[in-house]
Amino acid sequence: MVDVVIVGSVALDSVQTPFGKVEDVLGGAATYSSFSASFFSRPGVVAVVGKDFPEKHLDLLKGAGVDVSGIKVDGLSFRWKGFYEYDMNEAKTLSTELGSFQTFRPVLPDNFRKSRYVFLANIDPEIQLDVLGQVENPRLTMMDTMNFWIGNKREKLLKVISKVNILLLNDSEARQLFDTPNLVVAAGKALKLGPRYVIIKKGEHGALMFSGNSHFNAPGYPVEVIRDPTGSGDSFAGALIGYLAATDDISEPNIRKAMIYGSVVASFNAEDFSLERLKTLSRNDIEERYKEFEKIRRF
Amino acid sequence: MVDVVIVGSVALDSVQTPFGKVEDVLGGAATYSSFSASFFSRPGVVAVVGKDFPEKHLDLLKGAGVDVSGIKVDGLSFRWKGFYEYDMNEAKTLSTELGSFQTFRPVLPDNFRKSRYVFLANIDPEIQLDVLGQVENPRLTMMDTMNFWIGNKREKLLKVISKVNILLLNDSEARQLFDTPNLVVAAGKALKLGPRYVIIKKGEHGALMFSGNSHFNAPGYPVEVIRDPTGSGDSFAGALIGYLAATDDISEPNIRKAMIYGSVVASFNAEDFSLERLKTLSRNDIEERYKEFEKIRRF
Repeated sequence: MVDVVIVGSVALDSVQTPFGKVEDVLGGAATYSSFSASFFSRPGVVAVVGKDFPEKHLDLLKGAGVDVSGIKVDGLSFRWKGFYEYDMNEAKTLSTELGSFQTFRPVLPDNFRKSRYVFLANIDPEIQLDVLGQVENPRLTMMDTMNFWIGNKREKLLKVISKVNILLLNDSEARQLFDTPNLVVAAGKALKLGPRYVIIKKGEHGALMFSGNSHFNAPGYPVEVIRDPTGSGDSFAGALIGYLAATDDISEPNIRKAMIYGSVVASFNAEDFSLERLKTLSRNDIEERYKEFEKIRRF
Repeated sequence: MVDVVIVGSVALDSVQTPFGKVEDVLGGAATYSSFSASFFSRPGVVAVVGKDFPEKHLDLLKGAGVDVSGIKVDGLSFRWKGFYEYDMNEAKTLSTELGSFQTFRPVLPDNFRKSRYVFLANIDPEIQLDVLGQVENPRLTMMDTMNFWIGNKREKLLKVISKVNILLLNDSEARQLFDTPNLVVAAGKALKLGPRYVIIKKGEHGALMFSGNSHFNAPGYPVEVIRDPTGSGDSFAGALIGYLAATDDISEPNIRKAMIYGSVVASFNAEDFSLERLKTLSRNDIEERYKEFEKIRRF
């Protein structure tokens, strides 16, 4: 049995930032989010990797307690190439090769189907829907997406949004999807589609959560050394749902706490390329920074 | 006797945003900041306006309790023209006419010289220095600046920075002045120049405060209707120093509170053009939104 089912890319990334350059390193939304969830609970990943995908990457996930039995091996790996400019708030994509994800039809292992928490990380909305349909009775479902699907599969995407409890997206995506510069207006429109909560990620500026009648502002952590923000949004999401699954408490006060845990893990992730920082991160490191978050917002 | 001396532009602004367009309306850093300070204490403005400057604008300030005896009338008014694009986070300047400020040599009225609080709002750093030298024994000095002075009067600007207790600037200015994309690094460099606190304004994302050994993250307020953000940074500063002067408490916990009052007044200001919203704002409105700020960050 897994606590959280996560579907999304498990990928090979090539990334350049003002602080360095890496090629074909471990990346992908489901990778970052499942590894981050693993600090709190037992995630299971649904994905496909190519035959070219290094075994050691799957071993890393397994070592963290991620159930990789839902990762199929077939064809070519998902590859993303991108770079960050000076202020590093936005990834610029050079190329995305979907590889085997293009024809991927997920089949959930039996021990995934009774999971009570589901995170549909960024991937084709049709795959997200397919996975959602195979989980029998989830208590909480959350989804992320990106500009590519907003532009290319808008209708399917809106259908997924109507079926989840928490919609997660970043600020520029929220503006694009709901055609407004104002995040409060965007969140209002999103809530009308069905989700009970909308969480808008703002990179170094933290994240906002909107429900029908309340609002929460999670700060970003002031990281002195940001080497590569890739995967920080996914780390945020993974830690968030991992914490919710571990506590099995989906009240709004607990979602607020979960967002802070998300911000903590995301801030660590940005300190180095790929999963280099997360690999050495301890639960104790997380708790210490959580306490710092309490200090930086007290007034 | 005034509680806070404020020097900066009192100007006529022409502004276009996606929500409207105004011409030659009341604007200027000292205008917004003194009006905002007046909710808490008695500010006195040092500035020059042209003979073309409508008397009713000075009457508005007087009516709010601002001492305008330090505003000289001479030559032509300071005029700023700018616009905002879709996301409204950054003003694009079309033109700045300094008018009489170009040759302005401030002479402080006697009742200004014993003021214990000084805010050097955005203006030529030579004028800032001149004003600072005329206040006899200030308890707390704060300054703001903008990219124009960073580019054109860097040495003078660094001299002012070395003399104040609080340096206030926005995120892009901090990056430009200290030549780093990282705000934590920028703040560290700023603190080395002399100020005890550095406050970095981030528009809708709130503001960060750094001291030698602590950090505070003030959230932005989620405003549903932002019509014109012009002057919000000045409103933030004015309310902040107005609150500090009223409480005469410059401890860090009180500076944190003052930043929240600053964020509150700044968020109201963005709801309409010029001082339209501030004109109708009450202290009660401010206290209510202050309480909302407590709610949106509780976890």
